[in-house]
Amino acid sequence: MALIVQKYGGTSMGSVERIEHVANKVASWRAKGHQVVVVVSAMSGETDRLLKLAKSINPRGNQREYDQIASTGEQVTIGLLALALEKAGVPSRSYTGWQIPLRTDSAYMKARIQDIDGTRLLADCKAGIVPVVAGFQGIDETNSITTLGRGGSDTTGVALAAALKADECQIYTDVDGVYTTDPRVEPKARRLDRITFEEMLEMASLGSKVLQIRSVEFAGKYKVPLRVVSTFVDGPGTLITLEDSEDGSTGASVEDALISGIAFNRDEAQLTIAGVPDRPGIAAAILGPVGDANIEVDMIVQNVGADGSTDFTFTVNKTDYDRAHDVVKKLAEELGAKGVRSALDIVKVSLVGVGMRSHAGIASQMFKALAAESINIRMISTSEIKISVVIEDKYLELAVRTLHSAFGLEKK
Amino acid sequence: MALIVQKYGGTSMGSVERIEHVANKVASWRAKGHQVVVVVSAMSGETDRLLKLAKSINPRGNQREYDQIASTGEQVTIGLLALALEKAGVPSRSYTGWQIPLRTDSAYMKARIQDIDGTRLLADCKAGIVPVVAGFQGIDETNSITTLGRGGSDTTGVALAAALKADECQIYTDVDGVYTTDPRVEPKARRLDRITFEEMLEMASLGSKVLQIRSVEFAGKYKVPLRVVSTFVDGPGTLITLEDSEDGSTGASVEDALISGIAFNRDEAQLTIAGVPDRPGIAAAILGPVGDANIEVDMIVQNVGADGSTDFTFTVNKTDYDRAHDVVKKLAEELGAKGVRSALDIVKVSLVGVGMRSHAGIASQMFKALAAESINIRMISTSEIKISVVIEDKYLELAVRTLHSAFGLEKK
Repeated sequence: MALIVQKYGGTSMGSVERIEHVANKVASWRAKGHQVVVVVSAMSGETDRLLKLAKSINPRGNQREYDQIASTGEQVTIGLLALALEKAGVPSRSYTGWQIPLRTDSAYMKARIQDIDGTRLLADCKAGIVPVVAGFQGIDETNSITTLGRGGSDTTGVALAAALKADECQIYTDVDGVYTTDPRVEPKARRLDRITFEEMLEMASLGSKVLQIRSVEFAGKYKVPLRVVSTFVDGPGTLITLEDSEDGSTGASVEDALISGIAFNRDEAQLTIAGVPDRPGIAAAILGPVGDANIEVDMIVQNVGADGSTDFTFTVNKTDYDRAHDVVKKLAEELGAKGVRSALDIVKVSLVGVGMRSHAGIASQMFKALAAESINIRMISTSEIKISVVIEDKYLELAVRTLHSAFGLEKK
Repeated sequence: MALIVQKYGGTSMGSVERIEHVANKVASWRAKGHQVVVVVSAMSGETDRLLKLAKSINPRGNQREYDQIASTGEQVTIGLLALALEKAGVPSRSYTGWQIPLRTDSAYMKARIQDIDGTRLLADCKAGIVPVVAGFQGIDETNSITTLGRGGSDTTGVALAAALKADECQIYTDVDGVYTTDPRVEPKARRLDRITFEEMLEMASLGSKVLQIRSVEFAGKYKVPLRVVSTFVDGPGTLITLEDSEDGSTGASVEDALISGIAFNRDEAQLTIAGVPDRPGIAAAILGPVGDANIEVDMIVQNVGADGSTDFTFTVNKTDYDRAHDVVKKLAEELGAKGVRSALDIVKVSLVGVGMRSHAGIASQMFKALAAESINIRMISTSEIKISVVIEDKYLELAVRTLHSAFGLEKK
């Protein structure tokens, strides 16, 4: 018998029929003898609807009030699922964030969890009751409702699993696991049985939007085994776990592959300041004003300069491109640079895998495979477990399929 | 400077524009130097929508979960109004029932208020902040959300006014006050400046659905001056107050009329058991089984019998008629009665007024006026401040207009 925290997202809560389907799933886990604590999101689209309504009244209002309003989405679905469980013969009780309580700081709309009191939930489990907990929300020290920000229900699930010392946190979603790459781009993409937290972080931040990044960080920090499973298709999903657990057990069966997957991101734009003076502090002089304009930067590349000058390149989200371009143009003049070059027709493609840490030659194998298809690499950036390249966007599918095959990802 | 509790109903919260209108009204009261605490209902139709959704999943589920779900309607509108007030330049903060806290018993869906902690609300008022409180909801001793039942927001308003020792509780609605009768039936109907709690109770229970009865009872009990005002039309509304206040001030200006108004009710049906044995306990023998079937009885009339038998008549809501008829038919057989007579085509018309207590002749004046129009009276029932007659429904308008004129209600 295990204690399992199951988190169901907005799509799984999208209609009466789907809520009943979730109730049946929970009932079947319970029938197997497990204790289950359920965390749910609002019905898909509901949080957006509520925030849009609030902002139509006051677009720059007190964020405490936005949270007061937005948190009702989950308060409805916990009640609905508790009712569905009751009808399915499973005793159940719903809990808002404050009823647990799940304490957070007071950063409305993006609060961070500080403390979870598991007493009532564990007592329910012991008494054979399935607690249904509202994701995405908590309560601060002034007894105001807070929300954790988008995707926060995943974080609630993981944090609850950690607080209750659950055996596993299962994230139910509309995909049946984490894939070696996007199956819409490479039909041969394969579901991974396991992936490490670190790899998952790289996959998620690179655009595999299966899980919210913070929840993966959280799961890694508190060593909560995390499983991505489909609400709609039965299957084992993908287990996200430690590479090497302290007792040597968890990590033993992490797949032995060098590369776990290929992530990509179509949403970036590239900006280059050409011919800036190659002197200490130049990176800060450029990125300071960019940060001040609240523009997030992803890749940063600066090569060794010649003739006392160098080219400085970075990528931003396409939605920030116009503003970033304005900042950079002004900077180029102030710094006496030769000019600004930029590109919107780019994509970033990344190989991710903990295996590459201990294996040389992955980068050169990647570049060789791309060269064989005459795909020109515009930027390169590497980390311990990932190699990213920026290429022209029209080559995206070709590059992903080429790399998928070059590293044998279609094979188990 | 006064402390005023203002309650706005679902129609007043029905759209973004209306919420902004309410914010402006609150702002103007505050600009006059008053401290204002606002209580709001859910957007009109929202509570019904939520309960329908809940019952579509489980029609006979745990009522705690219905309350968890239904209470979100007000949680949304308090946030929206707080945002609208903020935009109108009025510092504001929203409060759910549990955030106050407003404590109730655990009778989910029809909870009764036990205790209100006014500390935070009074502190807000002192600090120039307008608290916006969710009507209809509270919290029980297990920290579960409760709701007060339909129309409960009025009760919240009155209870808050009592707890905060407010100078007045203003109930904003879509009518501009209490009328001498329904203006759709008698166009000469006149708005009353004042009415007593007792009269209002009789008017409300007889079908003038301006205020929830419980809130009027509550206001009477705690001597909270209650004012019915229109959200949409400026005006003084109707003040509901004590007939004779202890210090002699409040009641002094209650209108001197004998009759305050004419109420009527189209929703009743009449049932008569003819020729039942005229013996002690017969009324209980009839009404016991009716009550056991959860059928509420309104008027009860039994006349002096002859030949050892009597006729026993009562009225029920039309929706209970079929069930009541079944019960009564069975009873008639058991009791050896002569038979059952019933009528659905009836209405009850009532004269209401504290003045009639000390004046004889009101009843005969009423019956004479009806007789002059050849309106046959089927049943009569009287109380200290009301005389009700049951007549054929086709005479409703004629009877109301006749009485309105006979008692000079169109004149101030």
